[in-house]
This record gives sequence, structure tokens and C-alpha cells, in this order.
Amino acid sequence: MGDAVGVPKQVDQQQRRRQIADALWRVAETVGLDRVSVRRVASEAGMSVGLVQHYFGTREEMLLFAMDSAGERMGGRHAAAVAELPHPPPPREAVRVLLTQFLPLDAQRRAESRSLFMFLSEAARGGPVGERMGAGMAQLREFVTNQVAAAGTEPDPQRAARALLALTDGLTAHVLGGYLGPEDALDALDCQLDLVFPREQS
Amino acid sequence: MGDAVGVPKQVDQQQRRRQIADALWRVAETVGLDRVSVRRVASEAGMSVGLVQHYFGTREEMLLFAMDSAGERMGGRHAAAVAELPHPPPPREAVRVLLTQFLPLDAQRRAESRSLFMFLSEAARGGPVGERMGAGMAQLREFVTNQVAAAGTEPDPQRAARALLALTDGLTAHVLGGYLGPEDALDALDCQLDLVFPREQS
Repeated sequence: MGDAVGVPKQVDQQQRRRQIADALWRVAETVGLDRVSVRRVASEAGMSVGLVQHYFGTREEMLLFAMDSAGERMGGRHAAAVAELPHPPPPREAVRVLLTQFLPLDAQRRAESRSLFMFLSEAARGGPVGERMGAGMAQLREFVTNQVAAAGTEPDPQRAARALLALTDGLTAHVLGGYLGPEDALDALDCQLDLVFPREQS
Repeated sequence: MGDAVGVPKQVDQQQRRRQIADALWRVAETVGLDRVSVRRVASEAGMSVGLVQHYFGTREEMLLFAMDSAGERMGGRHAAAVAELPHPPPPREAVRVLLTQFLPLDAQRRAESRSLFMFLSEAARGGPVGERMGAGMAQLREFVTNQVAAAGTEPDPQRAARALLALTDGLTAHVLGGYLGPEDALDALDCQLDLVFPREQS
């Protein structure tokens, strides 16, 4: 933390921001997102409040950065999964690798989806967090709609995309709530994908 | 509140408990369920902490009562809707009137589903609230499974029930998040019902 008084190098700044975001997730996991504050996050990260404020002026900026980091991590995993598909990826598989990034099928995704669900109630209050979540959902919906349209089997791609995305989030909620096993959630998603993209298409 | 020093009559006790539960929902709506405490609820209800504690020994008892009251209200509405169906109700309609109780299609259900979603994260921590939510989900799933089995059109009623319930909660989350209009959510639920219960069956 010796560099805090000077101007930190670019690479250190990004690393420090990530440390703060990681601390934010730990605080949110323990006491709930509602109670995330610059003070609590600083304490969890072992930094001074002033240092955290050097990187993030407000609680909201900190939340947005933490959301974006989680999004980047999921995006990276998605890109790696897409790279293993044939080119161009069959629509069903393209949608499946995307949606399975959100299902809590392992410890990493479980932690991420818990975090995302905490952001849902924060997002419902509107403001920049709500806008960012809304923009992300719109992007997902556009992608899924286009893939369904490309498969050409569903008369109404928008409708199919809405249902697939809502089902994915509902399954996630039910796994996190302990009402559904991860395998059953994946099975339910696959059944829905089969309805939208009959097997011979993919 | 003049009766607080004596032993309140049975009917007053129940009414007082409901007043406290209503105050609990208002507190949860404003500051989040995480911050619901006997002290805050008492203040919102305009009662003393001691009076609230007379009715509910702990925060958890208070939460369970509030959950149960919301469940009773939804149950009453459901019973009224079922009473308007032919007897016996066609399976598709029986499932539809049940699931639409949970979709935020009007102000009342919107408030209820916001509350239920707040309880989801509380439930994920386990304990009595988690058990009560799990028992409710199991009941819902059994009902929907039986209706799908009665219609006899779906090879795997359990699978269909899991997807219908998860879709309903996912649609609810997307309406609350502002990603989906209530009409589109209802349309998505109807499409799924049509897949599970082809029209000629209902």
C-alpha cells in the first residue's frame, strides 16, 4: 500500500480495483449487498477508506466495477467455450454455452449467480446499476433472438428468447434456493432448447 | 394500544400480528429484508419493542408469520379464482390460475412477488425460513406434477412441472427487474402451458 500516496502505475491501479471488487463480493456474500459500503469493503480489503475512495468515488462506482468484472469473467469463460464449438457454431450450441454460463453448475458459477441475484434487487431500484443490468439483458436477448431466427424453426424468435432467458434465471433461483439440483436445472434447460431448436437443426 | 398491558382477546391478537406483518413488509420494501429487525418493525408499526416482542419472540418468528400471511392471502385469491372454473377444473386452467398468482401482473401481486424474492435470499441461508419456502415449493411442484399427469399429454410430468415453476419465477424476476412487461410474461407462461397442455386437452 506504499504507493497510495503517489500516483500508482496503470497496471497496479487495475489490480487494486480488482482486489477491492473481490472484497466487495466477500462482504456482499456475508452480510448482503444492501450493507455493502465503502467503509466495510475497505475493512475487508485491509485498506484505508481513503485508498478505496481514491479508486472509487462512490459506493455505486464500486458496485458497477464489481458487476463489470464479473461480466468480464463470465465473458471470458463464454469465449473459451465458444472456441471449442465448430465454426460457425450451431445456433442451439451457441445459445447453450451462453446460458449455461449463468446456471450455478459449479462453485464458481454458484458464487457468481448468487452475486447476480443480489444485484437484481439493487437493480430493481433503478439508477446506474439497473441501467447496466438492463443493457446486459437486452444484449443477451438480442443474441438469443438472432440465434433462434438463424435456426429458422421457431415462428417467433423473440418469444422463444424471452422464455429461454427467464427459464435460465428461474432455474438459477431454484438451484440457489435448494429446490432443484444442478443436473435437473441443466436437464430443464436442455429440454427447452430441444423445443426451440429441434435436434436435427443443431 | 391500551390493551397491551392486559391479555388481549384472541381476535385482537391476530389483528395485532397482522399489523406487525404489514409493518414488516413496509420496512422490507424500504430498506431491504436484511435490515428488518424487531426494533425497526416496532417503530414502523407505531408500537413499542416490548409489544412486538409480546407477539413475536424473535425476528425469525416475525418473518415466518409474515410469510404465512402472504401465503394465506395468495391462497385465498387462488381459491376464489378456482371457484370460477368448471368442476373439476381442466388441468391447464388449474395450473394457470395457480401460477398467475405469482406473476406480478398487478400492484398487489407485484408487491407480493417483490417480498417473495426478498425471502429467496433469506431462504438460501437455510434455517426455518428456508425450510418453509422449500416446503411451499414442494407443495406447488406436487400440485403441478399431478395436473400434468392428469392431462396425460406429457411423458414426464415432473420435468414439465419443474420447468413451469422455474419459468414462472424467472418471468417474475424479469418483470420486477424491468426487463419484461407483465403482458409478455403472461404470454410466455401461456406459451409454455400450451406446450405442456395442448389446447384440445383443456
